[in-house]
Amino acid sequence: MEPRLSFVTLAVADVGRARAFYEGLGLVAARPSNPSVAFFQLSQGLVLALFGAQDLAQDAGRPVGAPGAVALAHNVRSEAEVLALLEQAAALGGQVTRPAGWAPWGVFRGYFADPDGHAWEIAYNPQVRWDEDGGVWLD
Amino acid sequence: MEPRLSFVTLAVADVGRARAFYEGLGLVAARPSNPSVAFFQLSQGLVLALFGAQDLAQDAGRPVGAPGAVALAHNVRSEAEVLALLEQAAALGGQVTRPAGWAPWGVFRGYFADPDGHAWEIAYNPQVRWDEDGGVWLD
Repeated sequence: MEPRLSFVTLAVADVGRARAFYEGLGLVAARPSNPSVAFFQLSQGLVLALFGAQDLAQDAGRPVGAPGAVALAHNVRSEAEVLALLEQAAALGGQVTRPAGWAPWGVFRGYFADPDGHAWEIAYNPQVRWDEDGGVWLD
Repeated sequence: MEPRLSFVTLAVADVGRARAFYEGLGLVAARPSNPSVAFFQLSQGLVLALFGAQDLAQDAGRPVGAPGAVALAHNVRSEAEVLALLEQAAALGGQVTRPAGWAPWGVFRGYFADPDGHAWEIAYNPQVRWDEDGGVWLD
């Protein structure tokens, strides 16, 4: 396996509702999106997808499970951006499960759950290097 | 929210066991990894992390849930690579939940669950454009 993630697909109860939440946060659905699946092209060259839970279970050949076992982190450039994005997510129907604060390992972060319960960490992490596409590098 | 994913963290029962599985698949743990957390730098500028389930629940302020609500897709360049990687995952203790085959939407794919149950789709998708870093672009 080469070190690469190509798509990250979230199981959702209602693709339209989930799509509206992420559009409200500022993401723009890509052209191949349709009522059954929504795609968001991410700047580093991977895709965030929203797919009906039953459709995903059928495709994967397994039950979908309960959200939270995977946490998606979105890094931002300041503490103020962490606070603003958590507030925006809450206003759109997300639930803040961890208010913003400094972790013992030196990251200012908070978490929200999207309307389907998927866990997002919004983080200001001074320890990682950024590139011009928004990518992060550990060293 | 800018269109970016920075870290994808998988809740695991045993960081050492999970790390060994992904190292067996060919990933190389990054220098900041330790017994409590493992990091894999991905080529597009994001990080795959393995973190103890209780640690993640505590950090996120919420229960971890059951794996499967998020599917991680790893695209490869041929049908043969899909078959080989599913076979390798199974040999390392993964469970193939969907044997490889063509989906109605024109993707040759199969799924496996890692030792903690996280869902991976291995896919040959002739419809996306690749860049030199392994990134995929919808158009």
